[in-house]
Amino acid sequence: MDLSKERLAHIVFESNDRAGKTFDIVLLIMILGSILVAILDSVASIRAQYGDIFLVLEWLFTILFTIEFFLRVWLSRKASGYIFSFYGMVDLLAILPTYLSFFVMNSQLLTVVRALRLLRVVRILKLGRYVSEAEFLKRSLRSSSHKILLFIGFILTIVLIMGTLMFIIEGPENGFYNIPVGMYWAIVTLTTVGFGDITPSTPLGQFFSSVIMLLGYAIIAVPTGIVSSEMAAQRSRQDEQRGITCHTCGKKGLDPSDSYCRACGELLS
Amino acid sequence: MDLSKERLAHIVFESNDRAGKTFDIVLLIMILGSILVAILDSVASIRAQYGDIFLVLEWLFTILFTIEFFLRVWLSRKASGYIFSFYGMVDLLAILPTYLSFFVMNSQLLTVVRALRLLRVVRILKLGRYVSEAEFLKRSLRSSSHKILLFIGFILTIVLIMGTLMFIIEGPENGFYNIPVGMYWAIVTLTTVGFGDITPSTPLGQFFSSVIMLLGYAIIAVPTGIVSSEMAAQRSRQDEQRGITCHTCGKKGLDPSDSYCRACGELLS
Amino acid sequence: MDLSKERLAHIVFESNDRAGKTFDIVLLIMILGSILVAILDSVASIRAQYGDIFLVLEWLFTILFTIEFFLRVWLSRKASGYIFSFYGMVDLLAILPTYLSFFVMNSQLLTVVRALRLLRVVRILKLGRYVSEAEFLKRSLRSSSHKILLFIGFILTIVLIMGTLMFIIEGPENGFYNIPVGMYWAIVTLTTVGFGDITPSTPLGQFFSSVIMLLGYAIIAVPTGIVSSEMAAQRSRQDEQRGITCHTCGKKGLDPSDSYCRACGELLS
Amino acid sequence: MDLSKERLAHIVFESNDRAGKTFDIVLLIMILGSILVAILDSVASIRAQYGDIFLVLEWLFTILFTIEFFLRVWLSRKASGYIFSFYGMVDLLAILPTYLSFFVMNSQLLTVVRALRLLRVVRILKLGRYVSEAEFLKRSLRSSSHKILLFIGFILTIVLIMGTLMFIIEGPENGFYNIPVGMYWAIVTLTTVGFGDITPSTPLGQFFSSVIMLLGYAIIAVPTGIVSSEMAAQRSRQDEQRGITCHTCGKKGLDPSDSYCRACGELLS
Repeated sequence: MDLSKERLAHIVFESNDRAGKTFDIVLLIMILGSILVAILDSVASIRAQYGDIFLVLEWLFTILFTIEFFLRVWLSRKASGYIFSFYGMVDLLAILPTYLSFFVMNSQLLTVVRALRLLRVVRILKLGRYVSEAEFLKRSLRSSSHKILLFIGFILTIVLIMGTLMFIIEGPENGFYNIPVGMYWAIVTLTTVGFGDITPSTPLGQFFSSVIMLLGYAIIAVPTGIVSSEMAAQRSRQDEQRGITCHTCGKKGLDPSDSYCRACGELLS
Repeated sequence: MDLSKERLAHIVFESNDRAGKTFDIVLLIMILGSILVAILDSVASIRAQYGDIFLVLEWLFTILFTIEFFLRVWLSRKASGYIFSFYGMVDLLAILPTYLSFFVMNSQLLTVVRALRLLRVVRILKLGRYVSEAEFLKRSLRSSSHKILLFIGFILTIVLIMGTLMFIIEGPENGFYNIPVGMYWAIVTLTTVGFGDITPSTPLGQFFSSVIMLLGYAIIAVPTGIVSSEMAAQRSRQDEQRGITCHTCGKKGLDPSDSYCRACGELLS
Repeated sequence: MDLSKERLAHIVFESNDRAGKTFDIVLLIMILGSILVAILDSVASIRAQYGDIFLVLEWLFTILFTIEFFLRVWLSRKASGYIFSFYGMVDLLAILPTYLSFFVMNSQLLTVVRALRLLRVVRILKLGRYVSEAEFLKRSLRSSSHKILLFIGFILTIVLIMGTLMFIIEGPENGFYNIPVGMYWAIVTLTTVGFGDITPSTPLGQFFSSVIMLLGYAIIAVPTGIVSSEMAAQRSRQDEQRGITCHTCGKKGLDPSDSYCRACGELLS
Repeated sequence: MDLSKERLAHIVFESNDRAGKTFDIVLLIMILGSILVAILDSVASIRAQYGDIFLVLEWLFTILFTIEFFLRVWLSRKASGYIFSFYGMVDLLAILPTYLSFFVMNSQLLTVVRALRLLRVVRILKLGRYVSEAEFLKRSLRSSSHKILLFIGFILTIVLIMGTLMFIIEGPENGFYNIPVGMYWAIVTLTTVGFGDITPSTPLGQFFSSVIMLLGYAIIAVPTGIVSSEMAAQRSRQDEQRGITCHTCGKKGLDPSDSYCRACGELLS
């Protein structure tokens, strides 16, 4: 069996042959397994019974992930390039919490960040279609990010002013202990979550609450409108790029299956 | 009266003549009646008074539906083809719970799945228009299903990480007993449902809650944007199919705004 | 002063001259006043102090509205045509509750249906622009009504099945007393309202709740997508109707301010 | 150093050179600092320890903002023009609360309105891109404002009628003390906030609640549809403005897909 450094790098970093695919599937199962262990370990009644097994499993997964991490460092052309890349940071974050659990309580629970490692492994599922869809979503969101940031700034100003108003109107005796609590309440209300842990009791407070609720209900239309119109534009841009251009009249966006230009009637080359 | 096997099959499976229509209407009433019985039977005070009648009615409906089921098996060209079809499974599911009630408590309540049988009966209402609308909705949803699955995967990762964080920050003393409960809370919050059965009490927990709430409020725009833009595309595809035809070469589906046929280059009238 | 039957009918039914406008403004103020009286009268502390005045005012408004109603009956060309029209029914509903209060407790509170009468009076505000906007909204909603009805049928089926499931899983000891209560809870959850008066306590119940919440969060995209795409189609239909057509090449939807056809270059007549 | 009145006015009102920019950055930091002081001062435990420092800081900020205000009055060409402008009112509102705190309790908390002053300062961040985005959002919202007002009028009528109905059905013994409380509950429910501080207890009340919840869930599609379709229209209008120009007659804003100039009829290159 060929286990040269090049061959190993291929197995670890690519998944276009049998060995590479097997490696990725084993990794996928281990990541899901380690997340499941962290979740079950947090349930007191299950921990009481299987706590020892979970501890062993967690260390097993962590040691294997550590070996994998150093393998990747060794196999990559530039070690620092890998470590400081996005995937390198995620791989490191996936093993650190268990080691930190010697010093910090509960830190091993943070091993759930291993979920982020799934991003790397999805490629084995040959999710070519999903990748292009993800690209579509990402581009739509990026080109609407300026509008969304503006919108969040606007929301935070409303939250600040409404939180202060409610603190003045309702006061600590009705659960609005200070401005940060008032702002927390304003976010709970504006986003239509409405826990009900803090609620207005005075008629004036209920009136202002009604205003902020109607506001939250109306302005949810804004981010939705932004993303919708951005996606429609993105889609028509895609359609246009796929189209051909008539060399006679310059008409753009023609269907590649057309024989003649639909604007000037000339034969398309 | 002609009651040959062919005639019976026509009555049971079609509804384009009088007998077929009557059969479907009787079935419709029986389905609605059996659902109503199941609902009323669950209300303790009503059950105390009419429980016996309900039991009789339920067995009556079940026996009739059983007869209908075996009639369909016998009348269909291929018995196994019918049983393992979608409608066959629904018909079976509609009668099983009552028989299971000999062995399993409360299983007869599951007879409400009979509601799914309404799908079969709506055709008597000559809902031609609704069928084409349903087709439109189904196609829009199917072609956006990849994007929506991606989105749900993204949501579940956020839920996992946020649920764990809140379990670490708030802990069992504030109702966050374990990671599954934390994840339940994260879903309640992210979807803006906000029951309020579990709420953050510490300032840090309230801060993270605010972040997840604003996130949930902002990203609701994503599925909406996906479905909206998909529906707009679907509609323009429909419009295209309705397009005009070139009288010279017979090419169909031309855009009414075109001047020349894109297939043969002739001027369109 | 001319007070012939024709002149009176003009004052009461039209508002394009001074007397008609004054009549409508007085009516507007009286409607708002009578609603305000009903609202304030329901507040126990205010009623204790001003209850007598409110009773007098309510009867005053009712008598005046009754006179107005019979005036409209007398002045309209066909009395029965007016009484059974939409506005006639609203006018009648606005006066009945006070008379019914002799026989039925609290019925006078129903005088708030007088709010519907505002529909008639808005025309004095010369809301020409609003009328065309309302027409736009109405048409968009009507042409998407089939899709929305289908969607509500789909929602109710989910509600029925989920409500039953939760009743079986959680049971009366956790507040799910019967199927109707379970369906009420399912609606509260699916619509993301989330009162928190009934919440799942068992792990299985919380799991199913999470599913229904994610479902509710995802499918809110459907009605929004329906209405959005319908409105976009409505708007482009409006634009097309406003456009002119080239008589040479048949290009539709040209801007009326254009001099030459943008498709074939011919002079537009 | 040149400190003529013209030079000072340039520093205070413009930010296109070094001194002007420095002035704006110092102002930005002071605004954020004064808001932070107001927020922290409202937390009882922090106030107990640092209350004296906060009082000093608040007065310091207020005095500096007062000096700045009078500087702006003196430097602007027409003093009354500045004072009664939008920004002048905001600047005044930002200093008044502290002075009012001599007479009115808690008024100094209103200093959070200083957040509105950030509107003026954002320009230093050279947010040219954000300004055009804000312009886009503002125009989209303004041209849909008529439809949104109509929609809010419709919502308030539903709220009035539903609030009254629930007050009659549930009554004071279930927390629906009067019509205003019923309307508050209807807004909480219709907007899907759902605090749960007031909830229906009777079956009839729960039935009507279900109706209003499904209504609220369905009609959220309306404002979203309005804003989405308005934004799409706005975007296509922008695209049109960016269009091509006819080299023969100089007509601007032609659609890149046109073959002939719609103003002079010449072939477009």
